[in-house]
Amino acid sequence: MTYEHILYSVDDRVATITLNRPDKLNAWTGTMEKEMRQAVENAADDAAVRAIVITGAGRGFCAGADMTLLSGITAGDRPAENGAAKAPAPASNSDFDANFERRFSYLLRLPKPVIAAINGPIAGMGVCMSMFCDFRYMADSAKLTTAFARRGLIAEHGISWMLPKLVGVTNALDLLLSARTATPPELERMGLVRVLPDEDFLAAVQGIARDLVTNSSPRSIGVMKRQVYEGLFQSLDGAWAVADEEMVRSFDSEDFKEGVAHFLEKRAPAFTGR
Amino acid sequence: MTYEHILYSVDDRVATITLNRPDKLNAWTGTMEKEMRQAVENAADDAAVRAIVITGAGRGFCAGADMTLLSGITAGDRPAENGAAKAPAPASNSDFDANFERRFSYLLRLPKPVIAAINGPIAGMGVCMSMFCDFRYMADSAKLTTAFARRGLIAEHGISWMLPKLVGVTNALDLLLSARTATPPELERMGLVRVLPDEDFLAAVQGIARDLVTNSSPRSIGVMKRQVYEGLFQSLDGAWAVADEEMVRSFDSEDFKEGVAHFLEKRAPAFTGR
Amino acid sequence: MTYEHILYSVDDRVATITLNRPDKLNAWTGTMEKEMRQAVENAADDAAVRAIVITGAGRGFCAGADMTLLSGITAGDRPAENGAAKAPAPASNSDFDANFERRFSYLLRLPKPVIAAINGPIAGMGVCMSMFCDFRYMADSAKLTTAFARRGLIAEHGISWMLPKLVGVTNALDLLLSARTATPPELERMGLVRVLPDEDFLAAVQGIARDLVTNSSPRSIGVMKRQVYEGLFQSLDGAWAVADEEMVRSFDSEDFKEGVAHFLEKRAPAFTGR
Repeated sequence: MTYEHILYSVDDRVATITLNRPDKLNAWTGTMEKEMRQAVENAADDAAVRAIVITGAGRGFCAGADMTLLSGITAGDRPAENGAAKAPAPASNSDFDANFERRFSYLLRLPKPVIAAINGPIAGMGVCMSMFCDFRYMADSAKLTTAFARRGLIAEHGISWMLPKLVGVTNALDLLLSARTATPPELERMGLVRVLPDEDFLAAVQGIARDLVTNSSPRSIGVMKRQVYEGLFQSLDGAWAVADEEMVRSFDSEDFKEGVAHFLEKRAPAFTGR
Repeated sequence: MTYEHILYSVDDRVATITLNRPDKLNAWTGTMEKEMRQAVENAADDAAVRAIVITGAGRGFCAGADMTLLSGITAGDRPAENGAAKAPAPASNSDFDANFERRFSYLLRLPKPVIAAINGPIAGMGVCMSMFCDFRYMADSAKLTTAFARRGLIAEHGISWMLPKLVGVTNALDLLLSARTATPPELERMGLVRVLPDEDFLAAVQGIARDLVTNSSPRSIGVMKRQVYEGLFQSLDGAWAVADEEMVRSFDSEDFKEGVAHFLEKRAPAFTGR
Repeated sequence: MTYEHILYSVDDRVATITLNRPDKLNAWTGTMEKEMRQAVENAADDAAVRAIVITGAGRGFCAGADMTLLSGITAGDRPAENGAAKAPAPASNSDFDANFERRFSYLLRLPKPVIAAINGPIAGMGVCMSMFCDFRYMADSAKLTTAFARRGLIAEHGISWMLPKLVGVTNALDLLLSARTATPPELERMGLVRVLPDEDFLAAVQGIARDLVTNSSPRSIGVMKRQVYEGLFQSLDGAWAVADEEMVRSFDSEDFKEGVAHFLEKRAPAFTGR
């Protein structure tokens, strides 16, 4: 599988998707979107992959929508792929599942952790995409702006809903309404990112991802990730009923046997994800 | 328009509402409430106003309900205006809209940012009102107490619902149950306020408000503010559908054209809000 | 009333429940669960008790489920009491009330504050239980791990729903998916706990609890606690309607009269809770 606007590689349990238009600070395109989705689905289906890291080629992470595209729109163009593109049809008729079938929100239902490695500038649609990653690491020298309010645009692609769940309503309004450039330390104080040094940044994030899926049961991670995101749409009672069912189900898993065994034998775990 | 318990002025895109009973630390009254609402509606309708700052005259912001009123209630008075005053009838029959028609929650549906400039002590009902401002700036020497639990009262006027959305459940319980006096630095750590020096405090907040509505499209701000607050009552899928519609709508706005143009021309924006 | 796996004592308005299997770091048992619930109900019914502190005997708080139990399950045992134990039947048929009738969530409907005094290691089911306490204090040297993901288990007993309400989605995913050992300072930054010195730790927490229910009206605390937790399942409009009713009701309470009187008389309050 070859890609035009991304790179894809797998190394020791961790797949890395690299947004790859470095001369444009990896500005978002319809091609990039389709390719990223394809790569994510491949990683989901690949038993050798336990975690996905998303980063940018060159000095940027993602500059948002391509300015050429925006200029075209002001001149009257309405490209379907980046404009009001319809979300893919939901997998079922349930409103519940529809929450996980939007442009980026399909990442939430992926049973593997998705980690944004924000190596450089991130803006606009790049920020929206990163909202739907489970964790965001940010290099010391990177900067973030939602950008929309300074382009006369609005809170696109679910960010108005998701950002308050991550950092509270006031911080969300701050980042959205001002569209100011925010620095890693203040974003870390908000709880949006964890900051790491520029040097060896991507390798550090890949290492964290690898440790995560080695020390923790991949099966547990998949179930828990779903519990947390589905819980945003459930009552406490409903979430508890799911937890009780999943607990019993976990008792029959290989990973539970291994989870108890490695602890009692005081050795590193060797989880299979089954 | 003259007011009895507030002052109202407009200067360079920013309206300032000053709670004006300085000898009573601007304790809340029914008159103050009606006048503030009138002033807010005026600011909303005035094309020259792009942001609203609310502050207090003299050394306080708002001491909460007037103690004379509370004393009267313990003696058997039940003044309708500050007691169980009915909210204005909702603009529509929808439960959804009703969320934005309560005593202070009408501020949430205002398409212009509302900023509390907490210049001094803030207590009780003053805290409730500030919950429904988009941002809260607090002077170095100011103090905050919810007060209710020390008066034998309860979490009034929506604060029990809104405060956890701003600072999480535990911090909300802390401030409500203890009614302790909290300082600006700890409130900033909770994410409730941003702290500024006492000196030139109001001018600093007005400057921040002015910068906000100059650098960002007023149209974008209005749409995004509604997206964030309505999103608290929507599914992710529902919020996303709104975002897709609003995105397309924004493509036809003057502010979008200007947002792209000023960026490409590397100059300051001149948004009209249309 | 004598207990096997807990201790129960009352001193000056504060009941203390001590998980009491110190040789097992107070690992959770079915007996402990039944006894804790019994003790909590006793404290709720005892007019001399205004707050409940939960702590651990010896050097630990609660190590989670007993490893003997987990080992048994891997060998095929399925003990009803710690496995898929059914929650007690809800007090009413309403879905709303069901949220407050689960294994630990009954603590949320208790009209008295419940405070976890985390004196030492806390893991797994111990963390779940502490989610449903109103406040968590943590000794300097204590450590926390959700543990589940390293045992091949899932997010048990409502923690996947409650933790994001306390610390946001990203921090919740971090603690759940990694099951890493987290330290008091970082948990305090997340807003999950407040840190206190090891020395005189329990006495300090008991003192905070006593101050809380002396300075604040116990009646107010009971109503406000319910408002905050029920508010998680209400619209803003619905929560506001409850607040308006509760406000009027509070006007007829002894604690309101005392709340105004002690303030005007500039003396310490003497609340009765009525």
